[in-house]
Amino acid sequence: MKYEEIEGSVTAALGFKAAGVHCGIRKNRTKKDLGLIASDVLCNAAAIYTTNKVKGAPLIVTKEHLKNGKAQAIICNSGNANTCNADGVFIATEMCKATGKALGIDPTDVVVASTGVIGQPLPLEPITNAIPGLSEKLSKEGFDDVVEAIMTTDTRKKETAVKFNLGSKECVIGGIAKGSGMINPNMATMLCFITTDANISSEMLHEALLETAAETFNMVSVDGDTSTNDMVVILASGLSKNDEIKTKGADYETFKEGLKIVMTYLSREIARDGEGATKLIEAVVNGAPDIITARTVAKSVISSSLFKAAMFGADANWGRVLCAIGYSGADVDVNKIDVEFESTGGRILVCKNGAGVEFSEELARQILVQDEIKVIISLNDGNSSATAWGCDLTYDYVKINGDYRT
Amino acid sequence: MKYEEIEGSVTAALGFKAAGVHCGIRKNRTKKDLGLIASDVLCNAAAIYTTNKVKGAPLIVTKEHLKNGKAQAIICNSGNANTCNADGVFIATEMCKATGKALGIDPTDVVVASTGVIGQPLPLEPITNAIPGLSEKLSKEGFDDVVEAIMTTDTRKKETAVKFNLGSKECVIGGIAKGSGMINPNMATMLCFITTDANISSEMLHEALLETAAETFNMVSVDGDTSTNDMVVILASGLSKNDEIKTKGADYETFKEGLKIVMTYLSREIARDGEGATKLIEAVVNGAPDIITARTVAKSVISSSLFKAAMFGADANWGRVLCAIGYSGADVDVNKIDVEFESTGGRILVCKNGAGVEFSEELARQILVQDEIKVIISLNDGNSSATAWGCDLTYDYVKINGDYRT
Repeated sequence: MKYEEIEGSVTAALGFKAAGVHCGIRKNRTKKDLGLIASDVLCNAAAIYTTNKVKGAPLIVTKEHLKNGKAQAIICNSGNANTCNADGVFIATEMCKATGKALGIDPTDVVVASTGVIGQPLPLEPITNAIPGLSEKLSKEGFDDVVEAIMTTDTRKKETAVKFNLGSKECVIGGIAKGSGMINPNMATMLCFITTDANISSEMLHEALLETAAETFNMVSVDGDTSTNDMVVILASGLSKNDEIKTKGADYETFKEGLKIVMTYLSREIARDGEGATKLIEAVVNGAPDIITARTVAKSVISSSLFKAAMFGADANWGRVLCAIGYSGADVDVNKIDVEFESTGGRILVCKNGAGVEFSEELARQILVQDEIKVIISLNDGNSSATAWGCDLTYDYVKINGDYRT
Repeated sequence: MKYEEIEGSVTAALGFKAAGVHCGIRKNRTKKDLGLIASDVLCNAAAIYTTNKVKGAPLIVTKEHLKNGKAQAIICNSGNANTCNADGVFIATEMCKATGKALGIDPTDVVVASTGVIGQPLPLEPITNAIPGLSEKLSKEGFDDVVEAIMTTDTRKKETAVKFNLGSKECVIGGIAKGSGMINPNMATMLCFITTDANISSEMLHEALLETAAETFNMVSVDGDTSTNDMVVILASGLSKNDEIKTKGADYETFKEGLKIVMTYLSREIARDGEGATKLIEAVVNGAPDIITARTVAKSVISSSLFKAAMFGADANWGRVLCAIGYSGADVDVNKIDVEFESTGGRILVCKNGAGVEFSEELARQILVQDEIKVIISLNDGNSSATAWGCDLTYDYVKINGDYRT
């Protein structure tokens, strides 16, 4: 099956438009802080959410609105997470009402999402005042504005889309994401909105989202902090007119592969743009006895502050890799583990059978000064593999988070 | 019961001497890298170890040597962890043999510990060459040299001792510790050596060590990385001639209280001296339904990179406290949680019933610029409490760990 990358992210699929504006939540008037994605028709929809016990009010409202597996629009803001506020659910509900009114759709078919500081009241007025104008701006070109509207400490826009065939019909899946800090998703992630024109039931959408998140977003860690507002939402307009996907089968797998390409791309972009990051780190675990062990080991290595700091310093300190494997909780035989580093600078073996081997520090450094680095861990104890994505730990992570609110 | 703090740390108890020298493991000749603690008599002994699956060779050898609950000396080095080396167990065993020979005691009554870089061969010759001279230097004044010999990135010596009565007899418990990075102990901790002249069985020593570690060392986190070489060892010479403590009872509790004072002091010192730290952070959880919940919440907050960075920046970003409670895995009712900050600068309520309250940012800042800060979390859901210790996340943590090996 051929998957072709195309422009347009969330508006690339048939039936979707988007817009973004500055409404006044943020003081910086040049930064968009309110976004809208809307479909011409009612969509099948699915979402997954943070596992944090503290959940943002938008998640509570969205969960309620998606109970029937249907949605037609997504309203989202940055600058304030609308979390730990006494009136949070009221505010989130009002955002959906205003959106529904402007678009002439049922407010319960609106998904709402917020990102930003926790525990500061979110003012409703600037949002409701801006929504009519925002909905008038909806267009195919608006994908670039909506992704800007959800950025916080992000330094890069994260957007992609793929085109492929389902039977004789051409389908598109496109997505945008934000996420830079407080990134250690579990069963869900930072904000991510995906649209598709595939014809697929809500149940199969949810299943595909869950299965794909397990090997994409849930394998990303920037700082080990699982946010209160993580959410991935997918809307399927069905306008590509393929035979509806109602069960697992060839079409489901074709769709899921496209979804995986989109979600893997966005996961890597989120890791690469981790707060303060200078490098994208990819931990590849091979030869694991099972997939859970592979994922546990990959996630533990990518999350180690010490390993991350070593990567910042281009220091081939593989002992920290072994240490992180050791405390991961996975049942591994340390004496079988090999560790290699790889990048465009080359590839080097630094640990064999759990012990150090002689290696060229010069070559190691040449590999580790690149901006995309793979650490390849062979457990030599089975056939399962997993990949996790993260970034280095830098001075700037500390700087960004030392005075986030001010 | 009165516990009086006294000088002398590990040599304050009857029967103990210590020494430290530079033997050549480290390049810096002014930094001691080999230490020895020895008792005049064979001691009852107990130890706890890291839960990391990757265990340093010294731990394997020490565990074997302590099987009979007896020991008479501790040989320890810094600059190299003797971990992930093919010949590690051989080297550690030879260190015990050389020590046993120099002191005229059985090599299996020697405890061995190492700290430093992982995965680089530890040269035996400088150590065995230095041990005879080291043993000749043993003295009551040597406590200051042995603590220096185990320091790595530590910037402060961590040592203390207390005096108290067991029945009519005066007893002493003293200890030293090292630990600055790779600090997230679990069932054991960084290197810590404790000596006492109390007369107490190996079984009761082990029990007291386990119970006290659960509320002291295991409640410290610097960076979430559980080391491969964590170890706490206690030697009891029995020379204070109190009635031997063989069961739990009043004397056991008296002894354990003394041990807790020593271990709490050292835990706080380790947290305060976390790599790059400028502040000691204490997370106090009150009103928990049970002790496990209290400890889980306290440990999660103290371990959050985002919270730690906010403390560095003196930013009262309590949303990150709620976020860390939310992903801790503890079963809490978010709507009952209160959060306060306290230091010598004052005390301030920032969150009530899970939502923000108005507070003076000026007072908050005045509280958070101090170098010892308490975050007080009231779950208002029971009577259990716990305290955890950590430090802020700073530029220097990144700097120290970006090029640790070079």
